[in-house]
Amino acid sequence: MQENLIIPTPSAYAYPLLIKQLLVNALSLYGDQEITYRGDLRYSFREFRQRIGRLASALSALGARHGTTVAVLDWDSHRYLESYFGIPMMGATLFTVNVRLSPQQILYTLNDAEAEIVLVHADFVPVLEQIKDGLKGVRQIVVMADGQAMPQTELPVAGEYEALLGQASPEFTFPDFDEHTKAATFYTTGTTGDPKGVSYSHRDIVLHTLVTATSLCAQKDGQRLHREDVYMPITPMFHVLAWGMPYVAVMLGLKTVLPGRYVPDLLLKLRQSEQVTFSHCVPTILQMLLQASQDGTHDLSGWKLIIGGSALSPALCEAALARGIDVFAGYGMSETGPVVSLAQLPPGFTAADPRDEVRMRCSPGRPVPLVDFRVVDDGMNDLPRDGKSQGEIVLRAPFLTQGYFNKPEASEELWSGGHLHTQDIAVMTPDGFVQIVDRIKDVIKTGGEWVSSIEVEGLIADVPGVQECAVIGVPDAKWGERPMAFIVRKPGIRLEPGAICERLLEHVESKRISKYAVPELGRIVFVSEIPRTSVGKINKKALRECSA
Amino acid sequence: MQENLIIPTPSAYAYPLLIKQLLVNALSLYGDQEITYRGDLRYSFREFRQRIGRLASALSALGARHGTTVAVLDWDSHRYLESYFGIPMMGATLFTVNVRLSPQQILYTLNDAEAEIVLVHADFVPVLEQIKDGLKGVRQIVVMADGQAMPQTELPVAGEYEALLGQASPEFTFPDFDEHTKAATFYTTGTTGDPKGVSYSHRDIVLHTLVTATSLCAQKDGQRLHREDVYMPITPMFHVLAWGMPYVAVMLGLKTVLPGRYVPDLLLKLRQSEQVTFSHCVPTILQMLLQASQDGTHDLSGWKLIIGGSALSPALCEAALARGIDVFAGYGMSETGPVVSLAQLPPGFTAADPRDEVRMRCSPGRPVPLVDFRVVDDGMNDLPRDGKSQGEIVLRAPFLTQGYFNKPEASEELWSGGHLHTQDIAVMTPDGFVQIVDRIKDVIKTGGEWVSSIEVEGLIADVPGVQECAVIGVPDAKWGERPMAFIVRKPGIRLEPGAICERLLEHVESKRISKYAVPELGRIVFVSEIPRTSVGKINKKALRECSA
Repeated sequence: MQENLIIPTPSAYAYPLLIKQLLVNALSLYGDQEITYRGDLRYSFREFRQRIGRLASALSALGARHGTTVAVLDWDSHRYLESYFGIPMMGATLFTVNVRLSPQQILYTLNDAEAEIVLVHADFVPVLEQIKDGLKGVRQIVVMADGQAMPQTELPVAGEYEALLGQASPEFTFPDFDEHTKAATFYTTGTTGDPKGVSYSHRDIVLHTLVTATSLCAQKDGQRLHREDVYMPITPMFHVLAWGMPYVAVMLGLKTVLPGRYVPDLLLKLRQSEQVTFSHCVPTILQMLLQASQDGTHDLSGWKLIIGGSALSPALCEAALARGIDVFAGYGMSETGPVVSLAQLPPGFTAADPRDEVRMRCSPGRPVPLVDFRVVDDGMNDLPRDGKSQGEIVLRAPFLTQGYFNKPEASEELWSGGHLHTQDIAVMTPDGFVQIVDRIKDVIKTGGEWVSSIEVEGLIADVPGVQECAVIGVPDAKWGERPMAFIVRKPGIRLEPGAICERLLEHVESKRISKYAVPELGRIVFVSEIPRTSVGKINKKALRECSA
Repeated sequence: MQENLIIPTPSAYAYPLLIKQLLVNALSLYGDQEITYRGDLRYSFREFRQRIGRLASALSALGARHGTTVAVLDWDSHRYLESYFGIPMMGATLFTVNVRLSPQQILYTLNDAEAEIVLVHADFVPVLEQIKDGLKGVRQIVVMADGQAMPQTELPVAGEYEALLGQASPEFTFPDFDEHTKAATFYTTGTTGDPKGVSYSHRDIVLHTLVTATSLCAQKDGQRLHREDVYMPITPMFHVLAWGMPYVAVMLGLKTVLPGRYVPDLLLKLRQSEQVTFSHCVPTILQMLLQASQDGTHDLSGWKLIIGGSALSPALCEAALARGIDVFAGYGMSETGPVVSLAQLPPGFTAADPRDEVRMRCSPGRPVPLVDFRVVDDGMNDLPRDGKSQGEIVLRAPFLTQGYFNKPEASEELWSGGHLHTQDIAVMTPDGFVQIVDRIKDVIKTGGEWVSSIEVEGLIADVPGVQECAVIGVPDAKWGERPMAFIVRKPGIRLEPGAICERLLEHVESKRISKYAVPELGRIVFVSEIPRTSVGKINKKALRECSA
């Protein structure tokens, strides 16, 4: 069946999908466009291209070759953006190190990824010092002093980033190679076991960039991206390539603002001074930004903001909308590119009830083009789009990770039966919007019923005085499991378990939840903080451990 | 150097870029969206999917297999749209036959493409009858009666399109196969030699769709496409897959209006009744539409219209803008996907002089993402972007044809040195806009100077009373070549060669053109019509022959 292929004439150019191709017109048409780091440093796309060349020349001089893994530990910077392009474009692999992991976990990932060269911001030099004796393959360390004096260190340092770039030639011929070459890798920290290495090829990244751009740009009015937007990531660049958005922004020639370490006041200042119009972040950051700007000195209107990482709650969505932020959710995982769906309002949508609009904006949304997004039962049958039938989200798309590095069993489990298994339980509404019910492992099985921890969290979050909350299942001799709620109160607010219970029982009466979903008074506890993972998600594993 | 490839886990799905993937979400999210044929017949995307299944089942019953070439001779219809998907999705090759060719040329192309099954509109049955004895591989003929009685014919007809679809099952499992499988083929009719077969793979079409969508959708305001547009092609669907736009429209879930045979009054009626907002056509069609609507009964404002095929003249552009049409040029060839550049106004553009905006809209514009678009000298060196340095446009892109069918020499010439040679001579301005100077073979070499036939045409077209004109080089004993102008006057207008000459001499004085560019009085002739090729371009070959 593999006949009828197109046979190229010998001289035809077989165009591989490579990251360098994303730059082809961006640099020639938007050479004057700006990239700024914290508003302090700024240069043009033209200079960006030269610095990419210098970076490749410098890494080459340090021994980087096709296939070398180059690790980066940095805040969100122009240097990171240079690494996003320069490292994979030379055929090496960019390894974006999660700097929020423990030193021991960082050591594990550096060794597992076989990193040979490390670019490290001065702030993270102490981390490398702690683990230096355990590093197996690292041959060269480049320090990014970030405008400060070089830190004192016993590490064998090859040089300082700016100094090395200054000595290196901007001329570097980026070669063609197979589009399935590994371009980028990073580690996903599940709640069990060692971090798992996820990789994307050049082809994956180019296709993810095109599909994400198409989907974001195609929207008529709101929730869209266009060529005159100003882009600032507020999802760490070490985390799933900042959702792939820097590639989209550069391909479209957008002004790009790199905010360094996330400090709410600086983010707000940059938003204003650089006229940022498009960003993405996790709910916690949005909450911080709203709190830091509640004195009204910062106008947030017109800011388009994709929320991902964890669920956007209706309360937070409404608070952002009230400030004029065009906020909407996106959905994906480390393994999925990541963007597979976006909560853009449907064509011609007008909300009969404003809550419908909020519900849509908070949902994972609707799948983007080319993503085969199914909600299936255990037998892999598609479930009806009735808003009720619950099943797992399984995916096919042209940019999903093809497995975990050196983890054949986990890889096969991820791809069991030829579909990527997200482990998210969801329903689909007739209009094609997805609602996540829960993670497979976070569903609470109690008294023969399945209770969604996420749904109970949402209802508790709606109770006045609640700042945030997390619900988990805890073992129970009689019921198998029972829900337990951890709640952070707003400052200065008095709130008792009874009040929470009372509100939940109202939802039982209105048939919204089952009576099994209401925790006993003793299982409603107030805490000062909800533990989070290194990428800002609620750490239910830690909650389970501390409640055990 | 081919190490460091990503190795998929055995169960991972290797997602090939196939045309069927463009439908994945279009059909599930926009199932109620409409497709209409001439406003008479209309059905939903949901039914469209069923009809694609029925078409594949019916063709399968007629013996179509992976690799079978299925030819279509039809006006722009819903059936054509069904063929765009159903035929390649089953692994067969869609051959869009240029119905404007002579019967002998159609015979040549059907045989050269090895067509086995022909879907033919009743209007073209007489053409098939004329050539039936010469047909070599055709085994099955399906007539599309288009709602009328079946025509009387001696052709061995397998059935009528609607009848066959009615009997066939909507269930058809479209298989996966190699993304380099030939999806579509058609013939380009150069000015010399036999028509040449151009083919595109599934991968080519998917990538062209994504890149075109990204580029059209990314524009902030004007010259853009979005999810709420209503699409109507006015470039024949046999011609370079209607510029690939039907694939873009369906992927984005747009209402799609198929106008059948192009009749200006019907096109205008459909534009109004179906609220069409996005189309594309050649300049001649635009001129016809403006003329047919000049009584003011048709409001054309808000219509976004891409012009390609031949140059958009400033006069025509201004006339369209005056009617509120958001008109802009695109550039490409049969061999290039086709879209490689679009005349979208740059971000933040404001015209100091309205002529600057018209100049931009009339130019081929700026390259779309991923297209490596160069203007080079004979040594393949990039020319300065100074608006003056003339060279050939050469291309690399991930969706260019890889050669002509069974024409190894022409294929190697097209791809000489690894770049696709357009044979178009152009300059590039500092802002990245391209201006076509001429076709390599249409440049007039006179008195040691190169004169652009297109530039002289533009200046003549600006003379009041001129409807259209064409300029060619004719042999001259003394000067090598001299320009000769063929002019169509507007109805009822008196205009003499002297007046044309006079206006051109003004441009000589202002140094816009060389004095060699002004034809002698005897070489300025008035004609009732400019001959055009089957796809509406000025037929300079015919002009050269009739002036010889």
